[in-house]
Amino acid sequence: MEEHSGNSAIVLLSGGVDSATTAAIARERGFCLHALTFDYGQRHASEVTAARRVAAALGVLEHVVERIDLRVFGGSALTDEIDVPKPGEAARIESGIPITYVPARNTIFLAFGLAFAEARGAHDIFIGVNAIDYSGYPDCRPEFVEAFQRLANVATKAGVSGERFTIQTPLMRMTKGEIIREGVRLGVDFGLTQSCYDPPAEGVACGRCDSCVFRRAGFQQAGLDDPTTYANTF
Amino acid sequence: MEEHSGNSAIVLLSGGVDSATTAAIARERGFCLHALTFDYGQRHASEVTAARRVAAALGVLEHVVERIDLRVFGGSALTDEIDVPKPGEAARIESGIPITYVPARNTIFLAFGLAFAEARGAHDIFIGVNAIDYSGYPDCRPEFVEAFQRLANVATKAGVSGERFTIQTPLMRMTKGEIIREGVRLGVDFGLTQSCYDPPAEGVACGRCDSCVFRRAGFQQAGLDDPTTYANTF
Repeated sequence: MEEHSGNSAIVLLSGGVDSATTAAIARERGFCLHALTFDYGQRHASEVTAARRVAAALGVLEHVVERIDLRVFGGSALTDEIDVPKPGEAARIESGIPITYVPARNTIFLAFGLAFAEARGAHDIFIGVNAIDYSGYPDCRPEFVEAFQRLANVATKAGVSGERFTIQTPLMRMTKGEIIREGVRLGVDFGLTQSCYDPPAEGVACGRCDSCVFRRAGFQQAGLDDPTTYANTF
Repeated sequence: MEEHSGNSAIVLLSGGVDSATTAAIARERGFCLHALTFDYGQRHASEVTAARRVAAALGVLEHVVERIDLRVFGGSALTDEIDVPKPGEAARIESGIPITYVPARNTIFLAFGLAFAEARGAHDIFIGVNAIDYSGYPDCRPEFVEAFQRLANVATKAGVSGERFTIQTPLMRMTKGEIIREGVRLGVDFGLTQSCYDPPAEGVACGRCDSCVFRRAGFQQAGLDDPTTYANTF
């Protein structure tokens, strides 16, 4: 199995456009993929289902779904009963950090990614964070990624033994349109992905939440058709 | 309720001697305690039961038990079916990192602690790590704690807004004997704690694993009686 002959890499896979493209980039670079998805009390378990579809399509070596509970801490529209912001509110992301921010989420995700990497002898952890079509999340910035990478190399047996972990963020400087074009070039089937924070029905996206707005704009930028069925088309 | 009038702090509470003493120190410094315990596929759920007893005795404001699965990654005697080392093997901790090391465990624990702190508006996270009676774990060293603190302040909304998180490690430079004396001074009932990695029966410690060996030596150093019932007394 030729695709399994390279070095192992961990890929954080949410089931959305960015992580699917990130995984396809890691595969193109010759890594064997160990996918890691979190079931963390998202409002919709369909995100995890989408991640499973994407992982299967990518031919990953293994896919671990880690169930964690972020609802006990509260403080986010993505894990609480707070309503996800609709279009009138979407503008607030321009002026600060949106209410869909989940405290320390990417720190938690990368911490598990690091455990997975060390247990598998992998040195590369891919995460689809992006600082261009930036949602205002502090844990998507290069400063965060650099600080985590530094931590990884003092936190672990492997790091102390002189091995070096790299947090790979191939999308950091890409626009959403560029991400989508890159995914298409690499054969990602975006029909398998799900971006919506608040899907009104199975297989349907709201079309109005921040995530849908970014996705739709990205497909427009890319000049490509979005395979998503939207409940609201505007 | 006088003890709840101070600032909030998160305390990682395992149910052992070190975290119980750490929590008592945080309380003495005037913090309201939000305790956080992990049920992570330890070999014995009795650790979580001990943590609940300690939290209740300390009068914490709240106690969250977060269930996570570290067994899916493997690679440790504490989460796998690998046997916990017995006395003949205990010496190996002198020459490297013991097989009870769990990859990235304290990174994961502090990441959840950070989420909890940010959600509660707390700026202090207490963890009972120690670099003197040091088990060889890379994620118990000051370099690790400093790197995590630096990460915390770029990873979060609060950090970006100019608030500062502090990872408090009051035990870092104390011997096990000093930790136990400090706990006794602060009224910790060590009869509620549990240290054993491999208890042969409810309420009984093996007396032979690394953790039992450290605990017994600590009580000897402190010149105090250990309330633990040991199956092996030597």
